[in-house]
Amino acid sequence: MKIESVDLYYLAMPAIKNIGDGSQDALLVRIAAGQWVGWGECETSPLVSMANWACPMSHSACRPVRDGVLGQRLETPADIARINAEVRKLGLDIAQTDHTLSGIDIALWDLLGKRRGEPVYRLLGDKQAYPKTPYASQLFGDDPQQTLAKARTMRDAGYAAVKFGWGPFGQGSVDADREQVAAAREGLGSELMLLVDAGTVWDEDVSAAAARLSMLDAFEVTWLEEPFVSGALAAYRELTARGSRVQMAAGEGAHNFHMARHLIDHGGIGYVQIDTGRIGGITPARRVAEYANAHDVTYVNHTFTTHLALSASLQPYAGMADHTLCEYPVEASDLATRLTKDQLRLDADGQIRVPESPGLGVDPDPAVIDQYHVDVEMYVAGRCVFRSGAIAGSNTDTAGEVARGGDMAD
Amino acid sequence: MKIESVDLYYLAMPAIKNIGDGSQDALLVRIAAGQWVGWGECETSPLVSMANWACPMSHSACRPVRDGVLGQRLETPADIARINAEVRKLGLDIAQTDHTLSGIDIALWDLLGKRRGEPVYRLLGDKQAYPKTPYASQLFGDDPQQTLAKARTMRDAGYAAVKFGWGPFGQGSVDADREQVAAAREGLGSELMLLVDAGTVWDEDVSAAAARLSMLDAFEVTWLEEPFVSGALAAYRELTARGSRVQMAAGEGAHNFHMARHLIDHGGIGYVQIDTGRIGGITPARRVAEYANAHDVTYVNHTFTTHLALSASLQPYAGMADHTLCEYPVEASDLATRLTKDQLRLDADGQIRVPESPGLGVDPDPAVIDQYHVDVEMYVAGRCVFRSGAIAGSNTDTAGEVARGGDMAD
Repeated sequence: MKIESVDLYYLAMPAIKNIGDGSQDALLVRIAAGQWVGWGECETSPLVSMANWACPMSHSACRPVRDGVLGQRLETPADIARINAEVRKLGLDIAQTDHTLSGIDIALWDLLGKRRGEPVYRLLGDKQAYPKTPYASQLFGDDPQQTLAKARTMRDAGYAAVKFGWGPFGQGSVDADREQVAAAREGLGSELMLLVDAGTVWDEDVSAAAARLSMLDAFEVTWLEEPFVSGALAAYRELTARGSRVQMAAGEGAHNFHMARHLIDHGGIGYVQIDTGRIGGITPARRVAEYANAHDVTYVNHTFTTHLALSASLQPYAGMADHTLCEYPVEASDLATRLTKDQLRLDADGQIRVPESPGLGVDPDPAVIDQYHVDVEMYVAGRCVFRSGAIAGSNTDTAGEVARGGDMAD
Repeated sequence: MKIESVDLYYLAMPAIKNIGDGSQDALLVRIAAGQWVGWGECETSPLVSMANWACPMSHSACRPVRDGVLGQRLETPADIARINAEVRKLGLDIAQTDHTLSGIDIALWDLLGKRRGEPVYRLLGDKQAYPKTPYASQLFGDDPQQTLAKARTMRDAGYAAVKFGWGPFGQGSVDADREQVAAAREGLGSELMLLVDAGTVWDEDVSAAAARLSMLDAFEVTWLEEPFVSGALAAYRELTARGSRVQMAAGEGAHNFHMARHLIDHGGIGYVQIDTGRIGGITPARRVAEYANAHDVTYVNHTFTTHLALSASLQPYAGMADHTLCEYPVEASDLATRLTKDQLRLDADGQIRVPESPGLGVDPDPAVIDQYHVDVEMYVAGRCVFRSGAIAGSNTDTAGEVARGGDMAD
């Protein structure tokens, strides 16, 4: 079969807050081939990736994502790898290509799984999926009291591990951070795993991060996530060389396999966290999982949004029994929470498993898409190059003109 | 003074060819503050960066470039560094931000130089600019005969160094590549410096690149440029470990200081090639130049387009006497060639110098902008978020609405 159409849907909450909550909007990808439909999601700025999908060619290595996707043959996982490589080659000089490709790649795996009647992890070569221990992932409270309350709520909900991140952490004094972490530990009690996410707040300032290490260690924090931006390998290396029991976690900023590998090879991280919505999809994420597994680094998904994104992010390491943690969003927006009727819920043991149904096992609800859908139109030299008209709109033709067709029927 | 307006201009040749010629379109940036105007240029897909400039906020680390620029104070080089850091922070989760920021940063330096009455290199702290030896940069011919003719033309034009790249090179057999390189060397004669640019054709395949090393060495090729994508550090390291006299050159794909540093720290390259239109502007390019200088790696600009981009790309190392080569475009499009009336011409010794006039010393010609200008409009939820109407259009307000104002008068 051939890829016949690709539709992009920009969903957004009515008001977007200036906080570190990435679930406030979404870019959904719907791909149709033969009688099958697959869904994916990009972790991206929707408008930027829509432009990246539809932009005019600038030169042979600066072409729109659509040029590497529409009309391509899709029969096997090798076809997905080929499409992935082709999109990157054509889009070499467009940095956004990695983010846009991510949702495409995920939708292709979903589609192929549905056609084969198998979950994606099996198409990746794994025989069975192992349960993962979810860590409840949320923002720090605005003050320690809020953080204390959030921690108690998650402990009462039965989570064995909880992460706090962003918010005021790292923006003020070491003492202020200590109060936040103390509140988190107090609320969780001594048994639960506590993780802290600095959200790149120190950029590449090793001393600022190092000043928190003993405090984090005292509260038995398992990992300090993203003290620095992803590229600051020397800063990561310098910090990990201090030999703290607190390990470093990073990787959500990796846009391709190489960037994740660099953190493992040269950054000294203990956990590599991959967002399949950003690294180019399930294909490169799987490669990172295999590389991490071979280099004694623990692979973890990065997911703060929908259960579609969650299922996609679990597939690359679902079959790896030794990598047992998973990020689990607990305070996503209404849009992200309700997008899929199917959800990956905690089982009786408090564990998460990927769906055993074909593909990703979670489809978006058309009513929720309709509720939160944002129309986008782009004109270049008076010609409409992109239009996402309601949920019946299509932006999928191969001729460079905007098509009228396409619908949600699947 | 404060940054009052930013205008983006998408220029394009009437027909874009599917070849590795990056001069076929351009994204110009015009910034106004006080009574001053500065110009910059992004090496990017214009539509994608326009979306990146104007996109709605997704969350606190996924905001449009405009949010870090409009209304900012601009008095000193430190202000430019602050704006650069702020844009990257707000745009952390939008990969395209680095490319879009590039033209902004360049225009800010140009503007500040004009206000101070000094060329940019002096604002960077250098007392004088040293001449650079230009290498004529062009694509391989479609066949060895064309390459031979191109080489002879450049030798007759007086260039001391010539680079051939892209085209058929690396796409076929080693023998086919040998014929191309042999033709280039024959046309140049034995004295001229010959450089070869593989244009990332082997992705990360070390054996494919290694199979060409002895041939390149036999024709006394000084560097092999971009055998692999920028992130493939392990492939670069493996190839440089072979110990060939042919050195590796790379860096045009670096989107920030860190990526360029990784090629120096972990890739074993001999030349680092930075495009100020892609790495985030003159600010991070300067940092790379200083890092390269301290680590015995030769800094070279990457420029294949206009003389505005050329002046910008030379500023970071104009004051470094030991880094003597510069890339010089010799077959750019009509648009790129004619964009600026001021040009950086070879002097009587065949050398290039950055202009001594204030700022970058080269301004775009309004008539050429008008001739090649492409209108762009973007609508989100029925609201126009970006419009580049003719050259009198503006897209610069701070309120999120499209403004009517702005003009070319400067």
